[in-house]
Amino acid sequence: MAADIGLIGLGTMGAALALNIAEKGFDIAVFNRTTSVTEKFVADAGDLGSRITPCETLEALVAALKTPRAIILMVPAGAPVDEMIDHLLPLLDTDDLIIDCGNANFHDTVRRAAAAAERGSPYLGVGVSGGEEGARHGPAIMGGGPKEAWDRVAPIFKAIAARFGSSPCADWMGPDGAGHFVKTVHNGIEYADMEMIAEVYGIMRDGLGMTPLQVADVFDRWNGGPLKSYLIEITGMVSRAIDPKTGQPMLDVIKDSAGQKGTGRWTAIEALMLGAPATAIEAAVAARNLSSRVSERAEGARIFDLPAKPVPAEGMIDRLEAALLAGKIACYAQGFGLLAAASKEYGWSLPMGGIARVWRAGCIIRSAMLDDMATAMEGGEVTNLMFAPQFADRLKRSETGLREVVSAGALARIPTPALAAALGYFDTMHTARGTANMLQAQRDFFGAHGFERVDTPGAHHGPWGGHEA
Amino acid sequence: MAADIGLIGLGTMGAALALNIAEKGFDIAVFNRTTSVTEKFVADAGDLGSRITPCETLEALVAALKTPRAIILMVPAGAPVDEMIDHLLPLLDTDDLIIDCGNANFHDTVRRAAAAAERGSPYLGVGVSGGEEGARHGPAIMGGGPKEAWDRVAPIFKAIAARFGSSPCADWMGPDGAGHFVKTVHNGIEYADMEMIAEVYGIMRDGLGMTPLQVADVFDRWNGGPLKSYLIEITGMVSRAIDPKTGQPMLDVIKDSAGQKGTGRWTAIEALMLGAPATAIEAAVAARNLSSRVSERAEGARIFDLPAKPVPAEGMIDRLEAALLAGKIACYAQGFGLLAAASKEYGWSLPMGGIARVWRAGCIIRSAMLDDMATAMEGGEVTNLMFAPQFADRLKRSETGLREVVSAGALARIPTPALAAALGYFDTMHTARGTANMLQAQRDFFGAHGFERVDTPGAHHGPWGGHEA
Repeated sequence: MAADIGLIGLGTMGAALALNIAEKGFDIAVFNRTTSVTEKFVADAGDLGSRITPCETLEALVAALKTPRAIILMVPAGAPVDEMIDHLLPLLDTDDLIIDCGNANFHDTVRRAAAAAERGSPYLGVGVSGGEEGARHGPAIMGGGPKEAWDRVAPIFKAIAARFGSSPCADWMGPDGAGHFVKTVHNGIEYADMEMIAEVYGIMRDGLGMTPLQVADVFDRWNGGPLKSYLIEITGMVSRAIDPKTGQPMLDVIKDSAGQKGTGRWTAIEALMLGAPATAIEAAVAARNLSSRVSERAEGARIFDLPAKPVPAEGMIDRLEAALLAGKIACYAQGFGLLAAASKEYGWSLPMGGIARVWRAGCIIRSAMLDDMATAMEGGEVTNLMFAPQFADRLKRSETGLREVVSAGALARIPTPALAAALGYFDTMHTARGTANMLQAQRDFFGAHGFERVDTPGAHHGPWGGHEA
Repeated sequence: MAADIGLIGLGTMGAALALNIAEKGFDIAVFNRTTSVTEKFVADAGDLGSRITPCETLEALVAALKTPRAIILMVPAGAPVDEMIDHLLPLLDTDDLIIDCGNANFHDTVRRAAAAAERGSPYLGVGVSGGEEGARHGPAIMGGGPKEAWDRVAPIFKAIAARFGSSPCADWMGPDGAGHFVKTVHNGIEYADMEMIAEVYGIMRDGLGMTPLQVADVFDRWNGGPLKSYLIEITGMVSRAIDPKTGQPMLDVIKDSAGQKGTGRWTAIEALMLGAPATAIEAAVAARNLSSRVSERAEGARIFDLPAKPVPAEGMIDRLEAALLAGKIACYAQGFGLLAAASKEYGWSLPMGGIARVWRAGCIIRSAMLDDMATAMEGGEVTNLMFAPQFADRLKRSETGLREVVSAGALARIPTPALAAALGYFDTMHTARGTANMLQAQRDFFGAHGFERVDTPGAHHGPWGGHEA
């Protein structure tokens, strides 16, 4: 009996995805470079093993599949993907479908899709979000490539995806790199979401003197309100956890030095390339980077001796909740603005509401608010997510909290770079008369760049009286 | 009589540079694709014409030069440079020197230098800063390429460069792309310097209700103090200027929509690539971008109706001065941190103090403070410019002003994104115990990424009790 789909690469994510596929009733053939890994995988699969065909060679994998074939790659992003494609191509027919479900840089996916199109073959780049747990029991899935290729495997992806209500969180995002790009921006937003939570935690810990358990209580409570989301939920859980070794709160024994995998950085770089500012995401990427400079920060602490000061306690918890809400809306507005800019630049016609729908469950940034975002963006043209009526209303109710928190953090020496970036974006975008007239005057003075006037079209120069260049 | 040096491209910058070279006593042969431009240039050169040899063809230019030859390219950055090199190569000897003095992306310069090295030929990428006025009467000059090639033309570049005291602002920065990279970071810092000034102007205008003439008075006064610099000086001048057409202050009739040429963006992108955060520069790039969304901001103003509120007037001018000073130091620390990271990544051994010396005069960010920065960085290893004693002292005196201004702007709805980014960086870098422990707990919870502990080396996982992936 030929398998419905193949999967190459039985690492953490690949194994979880294969079990998920088998569990949903599809027959799957699997291959791993190290055969013992494949053997152990099938041995551990229990009842699901009956739907799994282990293959010792790529030839065997190809022979085990229904035609036209569909093969998922779950190998490390970068060169390994290109190498695997090179190995596979001689074994495949023209209409066989390769599907990269790894964390590819979307520029690589665009290139691979173009090479496949040149061969007359289909190729999909599919972003899978939700970690191992998601891959095993229901991830969010963002597909990119030819629509007809997506339609061939959509039943499988929709079956294994997370569900929001009855709606599967798996959809086609657009041609070539669209799926991997949407996944990248998801991760960028995730960076900012997490950093803003960490900043609020910093105000609680260093400005209000709260213990991790007190922090946990607040996040648990918030998870019953407008902030309800996976990240708020797990923030409560990790804040409550106790270290078995010392009996101390777990948070207090974890080093304040964060790692990163590059997708946040890719998002920030692409935002710069496309001129679609994502300053809150960039601040989050920078915060992770600076966190790793442990000895440099310690040197700074010795030199400046500026410990955190208390923040005004009265009403602060409510302000922090409002700040997270407003900061999150501004940050998502930047993310969706970046998606819109990329959609235009790369000709993807990304389904903005559809992206929000796919993110409602399965992925790390899943939240109730994303359902409202989908509704807002499908209700007609939205210049900026912050301007959609129900988000504008939320911002009107929460913006004061955001500015009071940024102000309090600034005065108390507690860094809030992502929240401050979100506020700067919000205030910039509702200021009709900004201060770039000063920049234009300076630029014309020293570089004769010219400027527009408020009263007369065209390029003008200032009366700088011979001082200018 | 053979000319000392050749120059191709008599646009604004090329013509100014050629006149500067002739004026300093060097014989120069010039070529422009459109011959009439060359003819007009020589006709307008007056007495200097005797030192200028106009050439109608590249062959004539090459024939007019002393050997081994040295030819400056002043053509638009990008493809035109590659095309001109292709045209020249068949006409040149192996040891002839091509010098790109345009605004090249340093990655292009690295590539062109490698190709030249392959041919056994010298190639220089030289950053020239100071606009037309600088090019004509004394720019800052940052050379990159083989040291011996720089030494061949250094007498000319040192003769035409700006001087700080008796010291010419022209020096060799390192191999291949080093000179163009240093110039790029100069421009990135310029973006942030200008944006922070514009933000302070915004507080004065929208928070204190000051007129442009009142703003001019303050900047003129500041230019006699620690902020003394070219940009502060011209800010006073443009704020004082009156529009001949309407009689209104010039600033008030200039549209608040700023242009950019890409070097600020290149700086921010490279900072992300190298993991050397330059958040104040990135905020400045974003601010220019958002300034151009005039109709979107007007829509935001209609929807939110949150006009600026007054800021507390008492002592605010002094706080703004302190904020600019502290913000500037933090921003320069980011810029020099980026230079150090690039130096390591690309093997340039950039002369950190030497860069500050070259920037002391001729370029847009020239200031007295850069002389102190040079001294600080040449006095021994500096982890971070903010930590060098005399800058730490300045920060200690000014940091309160920066935080009060960011706080005031936040509460008064006046955006200060670059100042806030600078404050966030400063506060992060003197906080020994940050909040990335929260990020690490979250990441381990949902992705099993592991974390370090404060008490035990190695990678650990949290007791998340089966909730984790």
